[in-house]
Amino acid sequence: MFSEEMVKSVGGGSEIRAMFEQGAKLAAQFGAENVYDFTLGNPDPEADPEVTAAIKKYADEPGIHKYMPNAGYKDVREKIAAYMKEQNGVDYTFENVLMIAGAAAGLNVVLKSLLNPGENVIVIAPYFVEYLSYIRNHRGVPNIVKAKADSFDIDVDAVVNAINSETKAILLNSPNNPTGVVYSEEALRALAEAVAKKEEEYGHEIYVLSDEPYIKLTYSGVKVPSIPSIFRNSIVVNSFSKSLALPGERIGYIIVNPAIKDADILMQGMIICARTLGYVNAPSLFQKVIADNLDLTTGLESYAERGELLYNIITEAGFECLKPQGAFYLFPKAPIEDDRAFCKAALKYNLILVSGSGFGCPGYFRLAYCVSKETILRSKNAWMELGKEFGLI
Amino acid sequence: MFSEEMVKSVGGGSEIRAMFEQGAKLAAQFGAENVYDFTLGNPDPEADPEVTAAIKKYADEPGIHKYMPNAGYKDVREKIAAYMKEQNGVDYTFENVLMIAGAAAGLNVVLKSLLNPGENVIVIAPYFVEYLSYIRNHRGVPNIVKAKADSFDIDVDAVVNAINSETKAILLNSPNNPTGVVYSEEALRALAEAVAKKEEEYGHEIYVLSDEPYIKLTYSGVKVPSIPSIFRNSIVVNSFSKSLALPGERIGYIIVNPAIKDADILMQGMIICARTLGYVNAPSLFQKVIADNLDLTTGLESYAERGELLYNIITEAGFECLKPQGAFYLFPKAPIEDDRAFCKAALKYNLILVSGSGFGCPGYFRLAYCVSKETILRSKNAWMELGKEFGLI
Repeated sequence: MFSEEMVKSVGGGSEIRAMFEQGAKLAAQFGAENVYDFTLGNPDPEADPEVTAAIKKYADEPGIHKYMPNAGYKDVREKIAAYMKEQNGVDYTFENVLMIAGAAAGLNVVLKSLLNPGENVIVIAPYFVEYLSYIRNHRGVPNIVKAKADSFDIDVDAVVNAINSETKAILLNSPNNPTGVVYSEEALRALAEAVAKKEEEYGHEIYVLSDEPYIKLTYSGVKVPSIPSIFRNSIVVNSFSKSLALPGERIGYIIVNPAIKDADILMQGMIICARTLGYVNAPSLFQKVIADNLDLTTGLESYAERGELLYNIITEAGFECLKPQGAFYLFPKAPIEDDRAFCKAALKYNLILVSGSGFGCPGYFRLAYCVSKETILRSKNAWMELGKEFGLI
Repeated sequence: MFSEEMVKSVGGGSEIRAMFEQGAKLAAQFGAENVYDFTLGNPDPEADPEVTAAIKKYADEPGIHKYMPNAGYKDVREKIAAYMKEQNGVDYTFENVLMIAGAAAGLNVVLKSLLNPGENVIVIAPYFVEYLSYIRNHRGVPNIVKAKADSFDIDVDAVVNAINSETKAILLNSPNNPTGVVYSEEALRALAEAVAKKEEEYGHEIYVLSDEPYIKLTYSGVKVPSIPSIFRNSIVVNSFSKSLALPGERIGYIIVNPAIKDADILMQGMIICARTLGYVNAPSLFQKVIADNLDLTTGLESYAERGELLYNIITEAGFECLKPQGAFYLFPKAPIEDDRAFCKAALKYNLILVSGSGFGCPGYFRLAYCVSKETILRSKNAWMELGKEFGLI
């Protein structure tokens, strides 16, 4: 009666959101302070005062709420181009920038602009699960390649072996959701070299789509290698959901490497795709707000502290986990093979976790530590009980 | 190299936007005050003080910029359900409301949720041209039916004759862009009766999608018949782009008639489709802002005055046109068969118009009168000259 595809998807839904709703139910039952919800990448800090001041400042600026060119305000695009040029050493201009309603929107626009039916996009597991929906939505085929087992760094050989004549793009996300890992410069450079050879072999471009919402969130001096400086055929998608704690506002951008052949056609096409998908333009007020705050990072120190704190607690409880590098996620090993069964067991202690299976990586689970410090501190006993139940301590 | 479909679309683009850019060029050449740009439905009035006050009020409310449930804030959805219940006499609840980033986004989400490949959507010409892209984007087939020649009201017999076993939906837009016409209650009731018979004949629902961004903009006492009260299987898409002069902010909603069979599955499916399309949620701050201002209509009196003024000028210049009923468009007859050639001729007088062909209705042209009163007044001589050139006066 409705779209058959849509009806099939109902019930499937998002495991993250399902666990988030489970957490809300437990909170209603036991009180929010007794429930430890680590499900959602919903930044705990409020927006910085500079950001709220900018909202108020622009609220009644003449013309601010009107249509502007579909690609966004020119001055905003110029500021982003200048910022990204400085960060990456790439000669971006405003004509390479398309303002868009967040990174999920940006990925949709880029994929629609690139993909012909049946073309492949390489996705590195673990991955943000909706990547697969986005790719399929534009009639592409996700080609899933596992990251290295211990470090979750890119397994360059595995990626190169997965490239075939239908490979249109490689989707990277570093700092990574769900692992919190930053892909190493060594792996990226090796990949770039191998991809260039494959491009020659197959006679067509292989684009690198870099989804970078967490790029400003790294800890203990970890640096994120610049993907646009390493990959010529790179398209970056970014949002201010995490870096300025504005996930509800849906504001971000796409920036195309000017070295891409026919980059101008790609930009025109992306604008049309954004219209066809119903985006029209990125929210106007927030374009101006973020452009005034490109150098700001909201909550960085608190994330660093909380990541460390949670890491210490769970390792004390006997869980195996990499140290936090970036984003605001930990991705510990589940103590039993069945990670979904493990997350279910954790609910007994009011610990709300998301299984690694939800990210294409069974045997692990994800913790979002963008929650209050109190939640983390209070969760310690629950972790110790959980560790005991599974014989870890 | 890129998506072939995308590359083909580049250059096609939007005629409205192309003429708008032509206008900007002429304005740079002759001065903005000497160019009469009637191309874009970009409201001239600024947002009302109540709206900008609400933006400032909510800017630093705790949690305001965070993720909320994908369907939107519950209190916002409740306010919209109550408002729509009052307006239409339909028993809406918040569970029928999905907050979404504007009507274009809403239509995309609804079409993705409804359409199986090859299914038909009836569109009444003249129409907002991007309807066709939206429908094709979700693998549907637009089935175009002409409105009545003189009144631009729905031609019920023609619509009924166009319904076939593949017809999934009928897309209505009243007050209409580009004609400014409000479809008559008589035609809508006759259509509802005929559609019910066809649903029985074919054994499946035929949904009525009502795109209502102009519903609050009517003049001279014209009333818009309530489509949800007339059509059981109705889904309304609305935005605050026109009624609150916020087109840049991308804020609107979808509301599903609770009488629709499995309305709850449709709602769950629409939420998933909104995620897959990358929308995630409607911009959070503006959800709260519009919910506090549902009774407000920005610029209504000025539109009434300007529509009347422009109507008087162009009819004095000899053009044939219906009196303004709703929205902020006039759709006069072109004095020659080739409406694109006519619009080109008008450029000589710095009159920037959009051809009826751009709306699937050759032989006419569209005027958006959501421009300043001064622009309309100053354009008089140009209209008189144009009328003279075509022997109308």
